[in-house]
Amino acid sequence: MLIGGSEVRGTEGVLRAWNPTAGTDMEPDFAAGGQVEVNRACLLAQEAFDSYRETPLETRAQFLRAVGQGILDLGDRLVDRACAETGLPRGRIEGERGRTVAQLNLFASVVCEGRWICATLDSPQPDRKPLPRPDLRLRKIALGPVAVFGASNFPLAFSVAGGDSAAAFAAGCPVVVKAHPSHLGISELVARVIQKAVADCGLHEGVFSLLVGQGNAIGRDLVQHPAIKAVGFTGSRLGGFSLMRIAAERPEPIPVYAEMSSINPILLFPSALAKNAETLAKGFVDSVTLGVGQFCTNPGIVFGVESEAFQRFRRAAAQELSTRSAGTMLSPQIHSAYQRGLERLEATPDVHTLARIDATREGCLGAPALFSSTAKQLLAEPECADEVFGPSSILVGCETADEMRMVLEQMPGQLTASLLLDQQDLEMAGALLPLLERKVGRIVFNGFPTGVEVSHAMVHGGPFPATSDSRTTSVGASAIERFMRPVSYQNMPKALMPASLQDENPLKLWRVRDGKLEQR
Amino acid sequence: MLIGGSEVRGTEGVLRAWNPTAGTDMEPDFAAGGQVEVNRACLLAQEAFDSYRETPLETRAQFLRAVGQGILDLGDRLVDRACAETGLPRGRIEGERGRTVAQLNLFASVVCEGRWICATLDSPQPDRKPLPRPDLRLRKIALGPVAVFGASNFPLAFSVAGGDSAAAFAAGCPVVVKAHPSHLGISELVARVIQKAVADCGLHEGVFSLLVGQGNAIGRDLVQHPAIKAVGFTGSRLGGFSLMRIAAERPEPIPVYAEMSSINPILLFPSALAKNAETLAKGFVDSVTLGVGQFCTNPGIVFGVESEAFQRFRRAAAQELSTRSAGTMLSPQIHSAYQRGLERLEATPDVHTLARIDATREGCLGAPALFSSTAKQLLAEPECADEVFGPSSILVGCETADEMRMVLEQMPGQLTASLLLDQQDLEMAGALLPLLERKVGRIVFNGFPTGVEVSHAMVHGGPFPATSDSRTTSVGASAIERFMRPVSYQNMPKALMPASLQDENPLKLWRVRDGKLEQR
Repeated sequence: MLIGGSEVRGTEGVLRAWNPTAGTDMEPDFAAGGQVEVNRACLLAQEAFDSYRETPLETRAQFLRAVGQGILDLGDRLVDRACAETGLPRGRIEGERGRTVAQLNLFASVVCEGRWICATLDSPQPDRKPLPRPDLRLRKIALGPVAVFGASNFPLAFSVAGGDSAAAFAAGCPVVVKAHPSHLGISELVARVIQKAVADCGLHEGVFSLLVGQGNAIGRDLVQHPAIKAVGFTGSRLGGFSLMRIAAERPEPIPVYAEMSSINPILLFPSALAKNAETLAKGFVDSVTLGVGQFCTNPGIVFGVESEAFQRFRRAAAQELSTRSAGTMLSPQIHSAYQRGLERLEATPDVHTLARIDATREGCLGAPALFSSTAKQLLAEPECADEVFGPSSILVGCETADEMRMVLEQMPGQLTASLLLDQQDLEMAGALLPLLERKVGRIVFNGFPTGVEVSHAMVHGGPFPATSDSRTTSVGASAIERFMRPVSYQNMPKALMPASLQDENPLKLWRVRDGKLEQR
Repeated sequence: MLIGGSEVRGTEGVLRAWNPTAGTDMEPDFAAGGQVEVNRACLLAQEAFDSYRETPLETRAQFLRAVGQGILDLGDRLVDRACAETGLPRGRIEGERGRTVAQLNLFASVVCEGRWICATLDSPQPDRKPLPRPDLRLRKIALGPVAVFGASNFPLAFSVAGGDSAAAFAAGCPVVVKAHPSHLGISELVARVIQKAVADCGLHEGVFSLLVGQGNAIGRDLVQHPAIKAVGFTGSRLGGFSLMRIAAERPEPIPVYAEMSSINPILLFPSALAKNAETLAKGFVDSVTLGVGQFCTNPGIVFGVESEAFQRFRRAAAQELSTRSAGTMLSPQIHSAYQRGLERLEATPDVHTLARIDATREGCLGAPALFSSTAKQLLAEPECADEVFGPSSILVGCETADEMRMVLEQMPGQLTASLLLDQQDLEMAGALLPLLERKVGRIVFNGFPTGVEVSHAMVHGGPFPATSDSRTTSVGASAIERFMRPVSYQNMPKALMPASLQDENPLKLWRVRDGKLEQR
């Protein structure tokens, strides 16, 4: 473990990473920590908080960029270890590395721009009757130390230096990461890069720590620690619910940003379908099988109004899927959960298997599968639309557009919805749009949900149970907002004023003065 | 009750308002509702949501202004009833009415300005390698129907058409208010104004309903209703905790914005104290006794370093307080809770009574009281700083500045902290500032915390347990943010685009385009 500037070996047993391709565990041993190490890391983070949140914006940006550069400088060591620990192909890991670095650099530029500070100034009115109006100035400050839990499916982009950490660092929050047990080696490599960047930038060592531990106990201790003021998590619904409960039951409840599960419905509209059933089917199967289906945005369900064209889509998708092969999944746990999910669907009356690849080899191979059902069945048994994490999807035939609306209205919150449509479908799509806005965080037109852009206008989030808090996003520039809270200063003496609120606006921020946005 | 456009009489018994000055109940009978009425109001709100959140901004602003004008048009009917139901003096009610109307008008202008939509556009990059970048556009939309619980101490400004309702309406959320049982008449008068404004502006009737009910059951049913997507509450810690728990245990947990309790520490700095002990003492006693101490921002605790000057402050404050008289409190419940709070303090060893007014008359009279204690005692027994809602405060002597820091560090979250200082105290104050920023939502310099400005830079909020969610404010323009969530649109056809995201920017909004703020 890395706790502040130190290397610490825990005394709670030993963990090893697993190579899902080879089916073997991997050197070296990682000594697991417990409550003692959690406490040490959290107290250090608390100690670091006041100074870190007031570092000049340029220093903070430099820190984020240094982490990005350090990750690139790890070169093949990181890529090799990531491939071994995840079974993901080299190209995917390199792509994810690029995205992780781009994310850090995006936040570096967001930090310097400073709009997230929300600097707001109300001029005093000393002569107002019956009472004078005071001078009021508002800025947002960081929430406090943040606990981050990495995702199994993104060893870099949603992990030690992933989106949650980058946003929290940008906001001015120290971060304590609990390493994903499948990514021990990658986590250590990246953590050392952060540890070095903290030192190089002259920051308090408590700005970052990495914890390694067995089972759920260390995560629970971390979320329960009084120094922790928010939690970032990407993972299963079970894990997310459990963290939400722990956080809500603390003497001081704290926000949990858990991204949990989503089946990312695809809506096929009649005219587009009639013209392009086969092309759409191919694109759909590409999206389902991408990365062995291990994306939070994997399209697990497709809705169409029953028609000859929907029949063609079903046939084409089944045929296309039959040409694909099984791929190594991230871990034995994920693989067996996937198998169980397929078995559950196969055992459900009125759910039919359209296509399924045989996975002849034992081990972690996830084989693509396609099912078919009806809106009626889904209305009667909504749980058969529960996420099956992996390369599987279910095609749902609706008798009418009204039935499609009914089944969508019943659907729980999702990260995305995708609409495949053309000019003739616009009216029908427009009528569904308000419903979809209520249900999801991102609406994709004529495309598939996999592929999450890291930019200013991205929302990777959505209503419960897709996430625990629909008010923010875990990807994109506005993720910084989740780690901020407003503070107002009344009649503050000039000598005490933070730079962001001084009359002269030395940081050249965009600010709201007496209700008007200005930059002077 | 008013449910949508209808008048409804419940069948769950009868309630009457109470006149705390006269000590009698008041005409007329209000018929209490139950689950049936909750369900009807919530389903109507749900039905209204999609259309209301897309009303043109100008219509929504007009609606808010119509409510404000309607409240003014009620004239003396409203003021008389409010005085009777609360025991508050006429001037205070008229002032609060002005503030409530100003609040509605502020949100009307905020709505039209549209910065809260956070319109954000990322240009497509069709030629980017390895993958093209899509067109992405983000806007914030309303969360959904909001349940609002009025406060006992602000029959207008934190009630039926108070801050939470105004912010929710501004954001595009229908509102279901549970009337405060002490404000039945005022609630009905204001609710009829809203009901009429809804009709006059051509809005869906479900945009607003007012429920009346016995005990906690109707509130619980309201918060548990699946159509409700957020809760606004101002009241006791017990009430707030209970709503937080109910909301967290729903199948779909929802955000609760509960403003609960605060003792609003005042910090006396040595140099200012030495020069102005007597003047400061008078200002302090004014603030403690204002409105019979029934403000969330009432200063319930004062810290100073022991000195001859602090002795003078103590004496002057005790003497000043002895000249004040008891006042009618809002309700018998609040009065008896205040009495119990005083008895608790009097029974605490090492807490001394400095001054206490006798309340000879029976009934709802709250008598000012002043206590004294030490930092040591507070460190040993933090619960003696629990809020005593009413005109009471406790003066805490610290042996050193370090001890003051220690006792502040132990203090739970507060709405405000006030610093009384001069030039010579700046260094000491500056050193405490980071701690105070972590603890409170508003920091007041050389003033007292009572008096909450309704403006852009106000924060009326703070870390738990002052509120349930430190990330927002319940007063001021940015309260609108608490009822919003972001949605992103990928490659959206022009024909479906909401006005806020269209290329031509027909609403002339400030928008972020490719990371830069612009208004074109």
